[in-house]
Amino acid sequence: MSLLTVGTVAFDDIETPLGKADKIVGGACTYISLAASYFVKHINLVSVIGDDFPQETLDLLKSKGVNLEGLQIKEGEKSFFWAGKYHDDLNSRDTLDTQLNVLADFDPVLPASYQHSDFVMLGNLTPAVQMRVIEQMNGTPRFIAMDTMNFWMDIALDGLKEVLKKVDCLVVNDEEAKQLSGERSLVKAAEKIIAMGPKYLVIKKGEHGALLFYDDNIFFAPALPLAEVFDPTGAGDTFAGGFIGYLAQSGDLTFENMKRAVIFGSAMASFCVEKFGIERMKNLTHLEIKERVARFVDLVNFDAQL
Amino acid sequence: MSLLTVGTVAFDDIETPLGKADKIVGGACTYISLAASYFVKHINLVSVIGDDFPQETLDLLKSKGVNLEGLQIKEGEKSFFWAGKYHDDLNSRDTLDTQLNVLADFDPVLPASYQHSDFVMLGNLTPAVQMRVIEQMNGTPRFIAMDTMNFWMDIALDGLKEVLKKVDCLVVNDEEAKQLSGERSLVKAAEKIIAMGPKYLVIKKGEHGALLFYDDNIFFAPALPLAEVFDPTGAGDTFAGGFIGYLAQSGDLTFENMKRAVIFGSAMASFCVEKFGIERMKNLTHLEIKERVARFVDLVNFDAQL
Repeated sequence: MSLLTVGTVAFDDIETPLGKADKIVGGACTYISLAASYFVKHINLVSVIGDDFPQETLDLLKSKGVNLEGLQIKEGEKSFFWAGKYHDDLNSRDTLDTQLNVLADFDPVLPASYQHSDFVMLGNLTPAVQMRVIEQMNGTPRFIAMDTMNFWMDIALDGLKEVLKKVDCLVVNDEEAKQLSGERSLVKAAEKIIAMGPKYLVIKKGEHGALLFYDDNIFFAPALPLAEVFDPTGAGDTFAGGFIGYLAQSGDLTFENMKRAVIFGSAMASFCVEKFGIERMKNLTHLEIKERVARFVDLVNFDAQL
Repeated sequence: MSLLTVGTVAFDDIETPLGKADKIVGGACTYISLAASYFVKHINLVSVIGDDFPQETLDLLKSKGVNLEGLQIKEGEKSFFWAGKYHDDLNSRDTLDTQLNVLADFDPVLPASYQHSDFVMLGNLTPAVQMRVIEQMNGTPRFIAMDTMNFWMDIALDGLKEVLKKVDCLVVNDEEAKQLSGERSLVKAAEKIIAMGPKYLVIKKGEHGALLFYDDNIFFAPALPLAEVFDPTGAGDTFAGGFIGYLAQSGDLTFENMKRAVIFGSAMASFCVEKFGIERMKNLTHLEIKERVARFVDLVNFDAQL
């Protein structure tokens, strides 16, 4: 099935306790599309860049089956830029610089060939832009998932709530879920968020795994314990890309398959953090992914003998 | 099989975002013994209290099959007392008061009937006291587990390292594992700690679950997502009690059974936090425990279809 991906394609400056990388390729939609490309062959990307973006990365995306017809390239303008520095525990980071550039007046336009995409992953962007994408869909996609962030809850909560009514699944981290719901407990937060619209909720807890909520069901996927995390940047988007990619590949929206999608998303994220930026996501093999998922099975597998 | 439990039997003042309780019964050995009592029938408790401790709690312990022959009661003295206040997220707390009282010069004496206990759980105490207990064992117990805390790493690291050489399993939280090893990554921390002596290492991560390390194997047990946590006090000791109790009941030290023991420990801890102090641990049924473990199975169960 086809997958529409929306979000930033951008540059990052990243500093972690293990190193520093300047002006490397990043952006939510880059990570989402790369991760999803290991599962689904028709990816329709919607984003905007300046004329400073490397052709090499565009070629990489194309080689992975990512359709760039919906990627706007603004001549004489610069791509979105973010600079951040991670704290020693890698669980928190400071934003050092944000330059919106081409993103400041981004108006997503869906080519006709995108408008019947079966699955949609709305990366973190202004709720108004996310809504503009949904409005351009011709017919109802089988499944729309979205990401968002605290910033939009602070300055565009009403718009965010409108988008939430239109999607099937929200994918956020624990702090975002707490802020959106006003609840300390993730169980209570999930109840409130699901009442806002999405039937499914995924709460990412970074190195502590991820929770999937649906109806009265809760599924927990661990994160793989790693000896070394080089760079957490993009791990959440990579998770989202693996998750939606796995779903789009199978077209199966049962809870059992959603659980598998969360595990495959977690597996993809565990690769992402092993190197800086998108490096590790460029050339994975299906065997590597399969072996990684097998480690998740071993990690949580037990026989309760009840 | 028989289980020897060592640690504090004490009073706590506790304040959490949901309430306050003054001078309620607590102490590591109280929680450990109560949790273990649902699995193993012969528990030999070693501790010390003043003459201020309620007979009702001693009767409760006796009714659960806990042998109090090794409980010293110091006439005219006061029991150990701790006061703490939890932060809003319940993940951290401030100690408001610590009164060692009878604990200041505690010299554990093992009655002859205790000296052949098959399993041993050394609750958090001065390493010197933990060592005194091990030295009094007549013959080699099948399995010794121990807890400790940052405080002993600060002031009695050498003594702690001596005890570590004598035990089969260390049960600590993530911050303690990081401090003891000097490693940021729990995988690297585990490697270093296992090189210090214990074959098995359990790292508790509170609401984020627990990891079991053995050889090249890692097992992860989630914590049950709860709508409301009333009081985290004693959850770690209750985990340890359920863990060692399950092992002592079965006498089975295979890795498969250790994994089950971690799940049963996690299930017991999930009960503990539902009420203040030891309240919830007084009258559990085996059916409740079984149903709770079944929820852990549901929580992490998936079919990877690899």
